[in-house]
Amino acid sequence: MHCLVVPPESIENPASAALPAATIHHLRDVMRVRAGDEVRLVDGHGASRRVRVAAVSRSGVLFAADASSVMREPQPFPAITLFQCIAKPARMDWLLEKAVETGVARIVPVASSRVVSRFSPGDKPDRWQRILDAALEQCGSAWGTEIAPVESWAGALALMRAFQGPLFVGALTPEATQVGEALSARRSRIEEGMVGWVIGPEGDFSPEELSSVLALPHATAVSFGPRILRVETAALFAVAATAAVLGAHN
Amino acid sequence: MHCLVVPPESIENPASAALPAATIHHLRDVMRVRAGDEVRLVDGHGASRRVRVAAVSRSGVLFAADASSVMREPQPFPAITLFQCIAKPARMDWLLEKAVETGVARIVPVASSRVVSRFSPGDKPDRWQRILDAALEQCGSAWGTEIAPVESWAGALALMRAFQGPLFVGALTPEATQVGEALSARRSRIEEGMVGWVIGPEGDFSPEELSSVLALPHATAVSFGPRILRVETAALFAVAATAAVLGAHN
Repeated sequence: MHCLVVPPESIENPASAALPAATIHHLRDVMRVRAGDEVRLVDGHGASRRVRVAAVSRSGVLFAADASSVMREPQPFPAITLFQCIAKPARMDWLLEKAVETGVARIVPVASSRVVSRFSPGDKPDRWQRILDAALEQCGSAWGTEIAPVESWAGALALMRAFQGPLFVGALTPEATQVGEALSARRSRIEEGMVGWVIGPEGDFSPEELSSVLALPHATAVSFGPRILRVETAALFAVAATAAVLGAHN
Repeated sequence: MHCLVVPPESIENPASAALPAATIHHLRDVMRVRAGDEVRLVDGHGASRRVRVAAVSRSGVLFAADASSVMREPQPFPAITLFQCIAKPARMDWLLEKAVETGVARIVPVASSRVVSRFSPGDKPDRWQRILDAALEQCGSAWGTEIAPVESWAGALALMRAFQGPLFVGALTPEATQVGEALSARRSRIEEGMVGWVIGPEGDFSPEELSSVLALPHATAVSFGPRILRVETAALFAVAATAAVLGAHN
């Protein structure tokens, strides 16, 4: 069944959903939906609804009023926030897609000092949101991955300091704790269900950045093993390790 | 430092290494090595050696005789064998690259019934080997990922039956065990350091294939969570979970 990301109000009132032109084009000309077809609407915040297409025309796609009830799914546990130093474009795109697929709750893109990127603090690129929406429609989950505006290292550090849960920092330092041990040791602190990961860019954190985050009382330097993983591999590795050790469900 | 995959005999005797034409071209015209440069040679089976380039000419690249000693690294633990139903080409390529990066010991490509591939049992595509070599040169490890010839499901099942270690099968069935629990429960059986993962293709295993592998006494059906991961995500997820829970070290 086709899955479509829509605003929460379109889930409440599908018959009056005003779809953007790009979505209408996608439904009509790419997915080729017809009157009578079923579509699954999701809002990315846990709500979903199966609706039937009432009419497809040049001007739009209308959903039927006699929709089934709204379903609400519990938020994935643990809720992973990924403080991700911006990777090179193709790797960043891939990372965003995999974050949705593996159920990451939130990404904070960080323009740390060694990041090579055309984005500045405050930017929220349309491209990233489109990739996240497409990935959510592809995997059909009701919970998507939120993305915050780009933060400077200082801005990200303030968010990390205020973060309500343990922070794991992918680090290449010899004293870093093996990922499984680090996660197990902090298991009792994850009652609220929030886990933060901090992943560096291609050129790694600067020494000052690394020491500033590791100075936070709830931060732990974590090793993924003796091999140096690429940025996007490290991010997915972190999420998979968290799911495996903390028994992520939903 | 540039890293080059060579046969074991070229590590023993770098001064008489006969490099293939493609390697000579790569060293000379792409990596632009010069006489006096250092190059790291690896054989993919744990041996490595730093050598100095003695001469670069139209006819070849010569290494100096006064090479440093041969280094031997212990094999990554646990040694993961991935019985991987062949994914679509771009996803398979990516999967091979990530397998090397994360230290998978061996891949057995399986042409199961729902695999859509132009490869038949017995095939060992050059393309796959080139991707594995390039990934090894990129990550600079002395241990690479071996790839076996393509197996039919029946052939793969015979290898799985003979496999000396627990087999974890990525399965979408409701009775599958959560990945972290499954790995922890079998921890004591991993003394020899061998772990097998069986990952299905885009269209999943057929019901007959799944029951045939789950009938093996050392096989466990494993769940990665409620979301359906893409083939290549599932493979990397499996490796990361194994490393996290079993404390993989080099």
